Amino acid sequence: MRAVAIVGLGKTPFGAFQDRDLRSLGVEAGRKCLEDAGAAPSQVEAFYLGNFAGPSFAGQNHLAPYVAGAMGIEGVPATRFEAACASGGSAFFHAYSSVAAGLYDVVLVTGVEKMTSQSTPRVSEILAGAGDMAGEIKAGGTFAALFAMIARRHMHQYGTTREQMAAVAVKNHANAFKNPYAHMHKLITLEQALAGKPIAEPLTIYDCSLISDGAASLLLAPLDRASEFAGQPVLVAGIAQTSGPLALDRREDITTFTAVRKAAQKAYRMAGVAAPDIQFAEVHDCFTIAEIMAMEDLGFVAPGEGGPYVQRGATALGGERPVNASGGLKAKGHPVGATGAAQICDVAEQIRGAAGERQVRNRDLGLAQNLGGSGATAVVTILRSVR
Amino acid sequence: MRAVAIVGLGKTPFGAFQDRDLRSLGVEAGRKCLEDAGAAPSQVEAFYLGNFAGPSFAGQNHLAPYVAGAMGIEGVPATRFEAACASGGSAFFHAYSSVAAGLYDVVLVTGVEKMTSQSTPRVSEILAGAGDMAGEIKAGGTFAALFAMIARRHMHQYGTTREQMAAVAVKNHANAFKNPYAHMHKLITLEQALAGKPIAEPLTIYDCSLISDGAASLLLAPLDRASEFAGQPVLVAGIAQTSGPLALDRREDITTFTAVRKAAQKAYRMAGVAAPDIQFAEVHDCFTIAEIMAMEDLGFVAPGEGGPYVQRGATALGGERPVNASGGLKAKGHPVGATGAAQICDVAEQIRGAAGERQVRNRDLGLAQNLGGSGATAVVTILRSVR
Repeated sequence: MRAVAIVGLGKTPFGAFQDRDLRSLGVEAGRKCLEDAGAAPSQVEAFYLGNFAGPSFAGQNHLAPYVAGAMGIEGVPATRFEAACASGGSAFFHAYSSVAAGLYDVVLVTGVEKMTSQSTPRVSEILAGAGDMAGEIKAGGTFAALFAMIARRHMHQYGTTREQMAAVAVKNHANAFKNPYAHMHKLITLEQALAGKPIAEPLTIYDCSLISDGAASLLLAPLDRASEFAGQPVLVAGIAQTSGPLALDRREDITTFTAVRKAAQKAYRMAGVAAPDIQFAEVHDCFTIAEIMAMEDLGFVAPGEGGPYVQRGATALGGERPVNASGGLKAKGHPVGATGAAQICDVAEQIRGAAGERQVRNRDLGLAQNLGGSGATAVVTILRSVR
Repeated sequence: MRAVAIVGLGKTPFGAFQDRDLRSLGVEAGRKCLEDAGAAPSQVEAFYLGNFAGPSFAGQNHLAPYVAGAMGIEGVPATRFEAACASGGSAFFHAYSSVAAGLYDVVLVTGVEKMTSQSTPRVSEILAGAGDMAGEIKAGGTFAALFAMIARRHMHQYGTTREQMAAVAVKNHANAFKNPYAHMHKLITLEQALAGKPIAEPLTIYDCSLISDGAASLLLAPLDRASEFAGQPVLVAGIAQTSGPLALDRREDITTFTAVRKAAQKAYRMAGVAAPDIQFAEVHDCFTIAEIMAMEDLGFVAPGEGGPYVQRGATALGGERPVNASGGLKAKGHPVGATGAAQICDVAEQIRGAAGERQVRNRDLGLAQNLGGSGATAVVTILRSVR
């Protein structure tokens, strides 16, 4: 397996864009990425598209050649990868693997989702397809309800508080305020977060991520060819995708995602690092409780200590280990299929030192954690600066 | 790149199964495949699911861990691959690539689709998502209409006749009659085929493939580990996936699929063979004209000679180069996401000499050709007997 670098980054702003369709978002991110790398579409040897539910959101399927063709990428493998909310991370995982294994030299990954053309109830219904429809969703277990159950259990088992969850929201809104690509630019206080409209007890509207449109792209190449590209290279040091049960009732403990734990362990081993070495991270805060769990499942803190860890400011932009400096799914936005790719873009941007007002101080080793559904898929990616 | 073998095969019958859901079909094919290989679920290092539109047909998404988990496959990468009607072939292509490149040793591929729970108009609408929705489908260009235009142009340009198209249907119905796994067991005459209910001129009902439920699985391993498995190994000698434009109006010539031509050339080169060497094939006869075009695009005959080639019986079961000995999409059935995997299963079964009444005589080198939509994706796979 040879070393692989990210040699190009491109992303659209995240938001609700009435006049944009899925293809135009995907193409914008892809073109910006090729431009950043100084690469031509004809150099792309394979195209990896992460998309969760384009056919349900927009009626269009067969999305990989549909998006690739509009960028002038034709005659090469163009495939869509679907792994629910981890579709972007999964596309990146497979793209990385193909370059590492020597199948291709130059591959383009794009994650994209266009969600806001549907009503919120219809979006909830489409998202529910990422869970066990027959077993839990048809019984009323929307994703907010499933994560509410998880939060309740976490509160019961470890004493996690609503204030701790609200602290995640306050931090991520503050970070997104500094991110021109974020969906939401609105500072909130702890009191506001706690007094938010109830969605599924104990979760309020401020515990939930956003319904967004957006896309993000990465160009990958062997590290020893990185100097041929204009974009400052960032090394993919470790990566793993794993799976676990879809339904909550098939798990021994719903306060942890075993798929995330396994993926993190594999990725750490591959990178030759341990959890304490990770300087900053973008994690999958689809709900605030998920960010608290990520702190524990990634091994940053022991089980049950995620809440206090966030509450004492350790993960703030100026804290010891900034988490979701981008604003996270909570406030940067969560165009489902784009999210995993965007997280990796954001980590790479930090390592390049190009994150502007939200730049983290220690930026040599960062991690992105992408979750599918209520935890049946996990992708963990570790990026390192090229010295 | 190391040599890769198919070491296990499993498939469900194709048909309209009121009492079966997507998961039960996928699990049946996967279990039969593991049983054929004498392998345990715990040996599977990655799971590749080909599925076109499960979320639209059945409301369930995040299908890879959903199916894998029910087979006892957990904690490994489980990903869905979508490339329209070539989803099964694409999943196989990526699975093959991962083993060839040394990422994994033992991987399971399953193609599955459950279509018959929806009405035919709704099925047509879902299938239309594989074409260019905004550009051609919204103007009435269903898949039958698109292939009717293609057929008309082929007739105009080369003198292809309705009798030649009907000959494809007659042959494939005759082959399916000998296949216990086929959806349709009904012999038809040329006169019946020509007098079929008109669907989109010049295509009648007998020119169209079936709406089916079904699944097919393959287990892959390095050739040098093949003896560890119970299933008789078959070598993957060549394989390629390529892409082309979605919309017909973006093509110079609609009587050929450039993606198929490119994929075939790549696969031939990889296998070290030429078109005349291929002894038998399973091709993507979503409409009868598509089988005629496949003869030309795969290089079996020159452009325009596909019709006469079929008409003179060259591709019959006892002919010089049997094509769709299984009955093809036309009569075996076309559960979209399963099709590409099932074609490869059928070719492998022939090479094993295990095809029963539909066994071909020369069975050392066979080809499977899987098409996505109206040609924007193509996968060509060449299998060879292990000597």
